[in-house]
Amino acid sequence: MLVEYDGGPFVGWQRQAHGQGLTVQGVLEAAAVRMAGWHLASSAVAGRTDTGVHAAGQVAMLLLPPGLQDKRVRDGLNYHLQPHPVAVLRAVRAPDGWHPRFSAIGRAYAYRILNRRARPALHRGHVWHVDRPLDADAMAAGAALLLGHHDFTSFRASACQAKGPMRTLDRLDVRRDGEVVEVRAEARSFLHHQVRNMVGTLKLVGEGKWRPERVGEALAARDRRAAGPTAPPDGLTLVRVEYGAGPFGD
Amino acid sequence: MLVEYDGGPFVGWQRQAHGQGLTVQGVLEAAAVRMAGWHLASSAVAGRTDTGVHAAGQVAMLLLPPGLQDKRVRDGLNYHLQPHPVAVLRAVRAPDGWHPRFSAIGRAYAYRILNRRARPALHRGHVWHVDRPLDADAMAAGAALLLGHHDFTSFRASACQAKGPMRTLDRLDVRRDGEVVEVRAEARSFLHHQVRNMVGTLKLVGEGKWRPERVGEALAARDRRAAGPTAPPDGLTLVRVEYGAGPFGD
Repeated sequence: MLVEYDGGPFVGWQRQAHGQGLTVQGVLEAAAVRMAGWHLASSAVAGRTDTGVHAAGQVAMLLLPPGLQDKRVRDGLNYHLQPHPVAVLRAVRAPDGWHPRFSAIGRAYAYRILNRRARPALHRGHVWHVDRPLDADAMAAGAALLLGHHDFTSFRASACQAKGPMRTLDRLDVRRDGEVVEVRAEARSFLHHQVRNMVGTLKLVGEGKWRPERVGEALAARDRRAAGPTAPPDGLTLVRVEYGAGPFGD
Repeated sequence: MLVEYDGGPFVGWQRQAHGQGLTVQGVLEAAAVRMAGWHLASSAVAGRTDTGVHAAGQVAMLLLPPGLQDKRVRDGLNYHLQPHPVAVLRAVRAPDGWHPRFSAIGRAYAYRILNRRARPALHRGHVWHVDRPLDADAMAAGAALLLGHHDFTSFRASACQAKGPMRTLDRLDVRRDGEVVEVRAEARSFLHHQVRNMVGTLKLVGEGKWRPERVGEALAARDRRAAGPTAPPDGLTLVRVEYGAGPFGD
């Protein structure tokens, strides 16, 4: 399934062991249970987003009784997902052996900073509000130093469960459009908090507190303390998950 | 002041006589009272938006004690506006004789339709959800028939307090960008519900229920019953108010 959600009301994707807080996985599985009349539903996902992080193109898989039509699954889940801000955009039968996480070959995130004096009103909960003027060109120069295959320990959350810190960053663009500075990040996969830690670091460059070169030095340090703070979740959206072929046939 | 707000929690701009429901004017004047330490605050506005209608560029004027610096006014109001989704983007001293409504020479609105099967999740409250496929080109052809100086009685709310039904519509564009169909409307001024009534009519064209030509026939009928229903407020945003000169000097 291709899934869109507003991360605001959720403590992230992953269902909590003791049920504290609403999760996207929790409401999706509950909708599946109501739709299919089963006692339990089980799901897997491409990227387990954190508390408050949004998705425009999350990909998840649900185990459902056989014989349900794709469109019925999409519409039935959407009906039972109400009133939560989660929408199933497409649903198709998964190919044999396909897995939303392990079959994925790329993830794209967008991070939006509202860079102006006044707090956000229209885009509240969907941007990071930074009131000092940011130099997007300097941020872009710093971002360029992170591209390629590196040890990203400096941008990795201590809670990260990945086996190793090596990742290949394919894209890290910074662009200003009026009051909004948008960072686009693409990689096969990311470490936990990697995008938010990169953005929190680039913000220091944008404010003029860091020279762009210092981003490269922070990377080389392989020490979380060498990089900037973690940007808040509000500005982050999982935009797209890439698969070599399918599952949506495009 | 240039003001941005999310119309969702408000019963429109205008303060209610008996205080039923939150209004943008009400929270703005309450913030002014707290900031200035006065008993009462009084404001005027360029366009009194309805319940649920948003603004990216509303223009309003407040009577305040003399001697306050522009930036202090902006920042002070924003501080006291919390936690409401209203932000003062700019504040400047109004020129003598200037009035946000009567000095305005143009208004621009955007109306966004999310045109897909699944309900909105990320853009909930900021789009009209239409699940049947819309033909944006047919809508644009219908929209073109409304351009110019006409009697817009067919698109005027019965509660409209304007003196007459004549208006000059300078722009009514319809464009598709992926799942979103956006209508842009510009005029010196609009009748009550005019944009939403035009959009509700163009939706009938987009769905194929009306030929584009019927929009011109509806206009010529000068009868509200000849046009389509009123589109919901969620999709509508007051984008910009134009003044011949100032007040923001750009």
